[in-house]
Amino acid sequence: MEFLEKYGTEAQKQQWLVPLLEGRIRSAFLMTEPDIASSDARNIRCDIRRDGDDYVLNGSKWWSSGAGDPTCELYIVMGQTTNTSSENPYGRHSVVLVLTNTPGITVHRMLSVYGYDDAPYGHGHITLKNVRVPASSIVLGEGRGFEIIQGRLGPGRIHHAMRTIGAAESALEWMIARVNDEKKAFRPSHSAHGTFQEWIAKSRIEIDAARMTVLNAAVKIDQEGAKAALREIAMAQVLVPHMALQVIDRAVQAFGAAGVCQDTPLPGLWASARIIRIVDGPDEVHLQQLGRRESQRMGEAVQEKLRWQSAETDRLLSLSGFGAAVFSGGYIPKANL
Amino acid sequence: MEFLEKYGTEAQKQQWLVPLLEGRIRSAFLMTEPDIASSDARNIRCDIRRDGDDYVLNGSKWWSSGAGDPTCELYIVMGQTTNTSSENPYGRHSVVLVLTNTPGITVHRMLSVYGYDDAPYGHGHITLKNVRVPASSIVLGEGRGFEIIQGRLGPGRIHHAMRTIGAAESALEWMIARVNDEKKAFRPSHSAHGTFQEWIAKSRIEIDAARMTVLNAAVKIDQEGAKAALREIAMAQVLVPHMALQVIDRAVQAFGAAGVCQDTPLPGLWASARIIRIVDGPDEVHLQQLGRRESQRMGEAVQEKLRWQSAETDRLLSLSGFGAAVFSGGYIPKANL
Amino acid sequence: MEFLEKYGTEAQKQQWLVPLLEGRIRSAFLMTEPDIASSDARNIRCDIRRDGDDYVLNGSKWWSSGAGDPTCELYIVMGQTTNTSSENPYGRHSVVLVLTNTPGITVHRMLSVYGYDDAPYGHGHITLKNVRVPASSIVLGEGRGFEIIQGRLGPGRIHHAMRTIGAAESALEWMIARVNDEKKAFRPSHSAHGTFQEWIAKSRIEIDAARMTVLNAAVKIDQEGAKAALREIAMAQVLVPHMALQVIDRAVQAFGAAGVCQDTPLPGLWASARIIRIVDGPDEVHLQQLGRRESQRMGEAVQEKLRWQSAETDRLLSLSGFGAAVFSGGYIPKANL
Amino acid sequence: MEFLEKYGTEAQKQQWLVPLLEGRIRSAFLMTEPDIASSDARNIRCDIRRDGDDYVLNGSKWWSSGAGDPTCELYIVMGQTTNTSSENPYGRHSVVLVLTNTPGITVHRMLSVYGYDDAPYGHGHITLKNVRVPASSIVLGEGRGFEIIQGRLGPGRIHHAMRTIGAAESALEWMIARVNDEKKAFRPSHSAHGTFQEWIAKSRIEIDAARMTVLNAAVKIDQEGAKAALREIAMAQVLVPHMALQVIDRAVQAFGAAGVCQDTPLPGLWASARIIRIVDGPDEVHLQQLGRRESQRMGEAVQEKLRWQSAETDRLLSLSGFGAAVFSGGYIPKANL
Repeated sequence: MEFLEKYGTEAQKQQWLVPLLEGRIRSAFLMTEPDIASSDARNIRCDIRRDGDDYVLNGSKWWSSGAGDPTCELYIVMGQTTNTSSENPYGRHSVVLVLTNTPGITVHRMLSVYGYDDAPYGHGHITLKNVRVPASSIVLGEGRGFEIIQGRLGPGRIHHAMRTIGAAESALEWMIARVNDEKKAFRPSHSAHGTFQEWIAKSRIEIDAARMTVLNAAVKIDQEGAKAALREIAMAQVLVPHMALQVIDRAVQAFGAAGVCQDTPLPGLWASARIIRIVDGPDEVHLQQLGRRESQRMGEAVQEKLRWQSAETDRLLSLSGFGAAVFSGGYIPKANL
Repeated sequence: MEFLEKYGTEAQKQQWLVPLLEGRIRSAFLMTEPDIASSDARNIRCDIRRDGDDYVLNGSKWWSSGAGDPTCELYIVMGQTTNTSSENPYGRHSVVLVLTNTPGITVHRMLSVYGYDDAPYGHGHITLKNVRVPASSIVLGEGRGFEIIQGRLGPGRIHHAMRTIGAAESALEWMIARVNDEKKAFRPSHSAHGTFQEWIAKSRIEIDAARMTVLNAAVKIDQEGAKAALREIAMAQVLVPHMALQVIDRAVQAFGAAGVCQDTPLPGLWASARIIRIVDGPDEVHLQQLGRRESQRMGEAVQEKLRWQSAETDRLLSLSGFGAAVFSGGYIPKANL
Repeated sequence: MEFLEKYGTEAQKQQWLVPLLEGRIRSAFLMTEPDIASSDARNIRCDIRRDGDDYVLNGSKWWSSGAGDPTCELYIVMGQTTNTSSENPYGRHSVVLVLTNTPGITVHRMLSVYGYDDAPYGHGHITLKNVRVPASSIVLGEGRGFEIIQGRLGPGRIHHAMRTIGAAESALEWMIARVNDEKKAFRPSHSAHGTFQEWIAKSRIEIDAARMTVLNAAVKIDQEGAKAALREIAMAQVLVPHMALQVIDRAVQAFGAAGVCQDTPLPGLWASARIIRIVDGPDEVHLQQLGRRESQRMGEAVQEKLRWQSAETDRLLSLSGFGAAVFSGGYIPKANL
Repeated sequence: MEFLEKYGTEAQKQQWLVPLLEGRIRSAFLMTEPDIASSDARNIRCDIRRDGDDYVLNGSKWWSSGAGDPTCELYIVMGQTTNTSSENPYGRHSVVLVLTNTPGITVHRMLSVYGYDDAPYGHGHITLKNVRVPASSIVLGEGRGFEIIQGRLGPGRIHHAMRTIGAAESALEWMIARVNDEKKAFRPSHSAHGTFQEWIAKSRIEIDAARMTVLNAAVKIDQEGAKAALREIAMAQVLVPHMALQVIDRAVQAFGAAGVCQDTPLPGLWASARIIRIVDGPDEVHLQQLGRRESQRMGEAVQEKLRWQSAETDRLLSLSGFGAAVFSGGYIPKANL
């Protein structure tokens, strides 16, 4: 909705924004595709081709969250406008608004997350075959897709992290409830109690450290904008779900069989946190980028270290008479170095 | 089935063993209860009371696996025979065979494992209210419940570990398939490839180490029996699911979104491995017992260590002139100690 | 020094504070004892007995840091004033100032940390045998030892954490220097490069999260005092050395053989960080206390969780017709629960 | 010594083998060099040049273990015989026997390992400047260096792993001694006791799993030779020191301050285990090789997996009416998939 408010034409706002805000309809964002490595959005290849006064769409999309909802009437589709050619790999994609009952659209199935289908919301697997929409359905204009999703994803990534902090905090409460159960029926045996108390303490430490990492990114976004905060956002994105999975899993273990079934929200919280490590690009991609960026950022300071190391070796070698002394068969006492 | 073959009367075998072996019916074991800490089977309190020529059962059971299957016709119920009193806490429980359509039995629901209902098999939540069965339904006799379940659980615990090794091995194959995909569409970016190769190597090392731990327990069971192998069984029970969860989770992450949904068996394998850390008693209980047992087993050898430590301190103190030297303001060179 | 400035008499300040501030002499704090569990200072049993106008000290101390320095002229000794009896276990200890060349003092040896003797500073193992000092040497008065060390330890514990953050930051710089060495001689093979970049990224995330945990404790100390910040101090004490050991060890591994020897400061940084997990009480003690405190603090909120769990079970049971339905042999579809 | 017995001429054996076996002299292997990435021995560039009836050596070596011993009289030097050219990168290196008091040799210093100088043994940093030896000093012949070190290193790598298993086993004994100390003075508080018992149990599990990994490699070496066992050797090399460092560190922590100083062997055991992760090539190199090898070895089996995945997706898509059904606005129930 924020994106329509920010980038939509008056007509687009009229048609979609009002019913969305009133909660009468929902939308789904069709971005991820099953046949490409989606961690890099430039790979997206759903075809959006100008044909007279229309655009014609052909492609395959999945993990379109919200597509399972009966009230979902709007698809926001990201694809390549292949008629325009651009040198810039970030200038080839466009975003188009599509009515969900347009001919050529098939919703094949809902994808599960571990065993959860997340009904009625749902994560759709959808194909578009010669789906025809009026040219006025494009948002901002051809080739401006990245502009739109970047404005949308930055803060959205912090949203995931924020919600996941909440999930971990809730799991810690459940763990404390179980370990210190008043009724004592389920209290762990005395000997293991120390282990559980340790889990509670570690979880508190880890949650709070992760929360500050998110707050730090939020402050940076507020003060300097999402683009300047890419580093801080990535740090929160990697740290938070790792932390949460650990905390939630401890709570599951503390609960035993009740911790994996429908009697507690714990297994569902776990599954939700698990996909956060994947959805906005897998951890490994964030870590590679962050590692490279840190290496560049700290370049000056670190070269100094290697110079020190060389100098230190030279100093130690000269202290031992490098170039002069001939080995005499005995041990060189450390004090002489 | 093994347990009926081993402990059942001729009549019991006739009635149940034949159709079970022919696959016409299935059975479910009603052991775990929702209101007690089930890691210690002595806590089981389902009431089995002699009444004339019958036994009358009252209690609540859950995680009765197989109870969801339409062909399930036999419940094997563990409970306390409260009419007989025994000093021995291992002599109060009995096992009774119950037809699933006996009046008083209610199957309330199937329990989910991370969203999976494991249909048609299912993990039942069942209550028994004044369920009446003929006295001939008891197995082995009153107070012999522990004898039966111990004969059954020992090797059964190795079964879990064996299957879980298989799950991890399968996950490793999936991970290798993805990371080295011929089509290269999903191949991770060059920079992260090293990380994934490392995951494959670590997984291979961990799987094989765990497999040998299981084999070691199996050999011990074969040679000296399940009771003598309690230590080795516990070691396998703790190590294997931990290892498998790690390996499977790496495979999930290597697959990205396809790794958490129904397109691969990975999320299901993960959920199955996760409950292994709970079902035969949580890790923490095994670890406490194992730790205590190791401390006792190694008692002699270790006291020697502390004597060495004392002697070493004495030696060092005497070398520095303990009892005579007065501090002279200078540093005592290490060489003099 | 801070402690003398805060608690010392005019005469004590005159004698010690001036030369200490001018750097002419150093002091060592004699607190830890070899024969007790020092994680609880109430165990300290060095005997301080009033005898006429003197105090007479008898006891054994170790890990007296700074005692190896030739300029160390002052021992600050914590012990029990056994002549006064107190109901309060925190009211039995006193602090006394002792000249290092007083008869009866023996410095036996310096203790090593891994292979480092930390010369010339040194960690002394010292005995006091009938060491006699004038009664005016006592600080604040008999029984006020805990008052003094608590004023001293609180912020001091943050000092350790702060320095350890610095050590980790330095190790990260060394790691980046090596992994991105200009000369490329030591650059890791292409395939492992991804692993090292990941280490850099993880280290950056972990250092920053730990740094904020320390800052959070520092702000709390500034705003509400050390006593109110016990929880936040403990969180920093546990998290920081764990983080630093991990980061430093990655740097060691990235350097290979140069990372464990005298050519880099890395092995020394590691050893220094390692003792932080012990010196102000081992992690395990902090974690137990923190776990207990969290359980109490969150008590209200969490009981709500268990009520929810019960209610949820009831709801699910009633949905499946609890109390009425008799099992009909078929599988109860999830939708009906 | 084994290598001389295997590859030496009669004269070489006469000169060196007898005094070595009688323990009158020691030898040091000069292989690693400070200016190259030593994880790949092909990088070794110490120059060995034929000059008339002599060889002349120039180069720099470090981590020459044993070079600090006063009885060390023999250097076994690996270098490139640059006069002979070979296409084969494994055919350029040779091994030469050198008397330690030959002119041109300088032993500059001993390298420390976490502060330990390992005196009197020592790890030498040595340069060779126009060191001249008779041509008869070469072992086996020019270009046969790899043949010699491969024969030597294979089983030697298992030796490291075997010794490290012993170190871990010893650390576990120390930990048990402390945690269950008869005198109870240092017994951890009741609440943390569970944590320590858990450490003992985990350590036992990990040591035994690692031991079986070593035994597995040993059996393979015995049955099929060191070359056929490269995979199993690498698995032991990676797993064992990781395991040992963890076990030893737990013992250190259980001991507190006594665990890091000279009163127990624990800190020394830790330092010795730490370099095992580096000396025969860093973990990361082994893991990359192992990962690549596993990917190849399991290639057939795994492609099957991806075919299954594709087929599964097709099946699921066809079940939902792919190609026919038009989205009807409602949620597609899971049961229909």
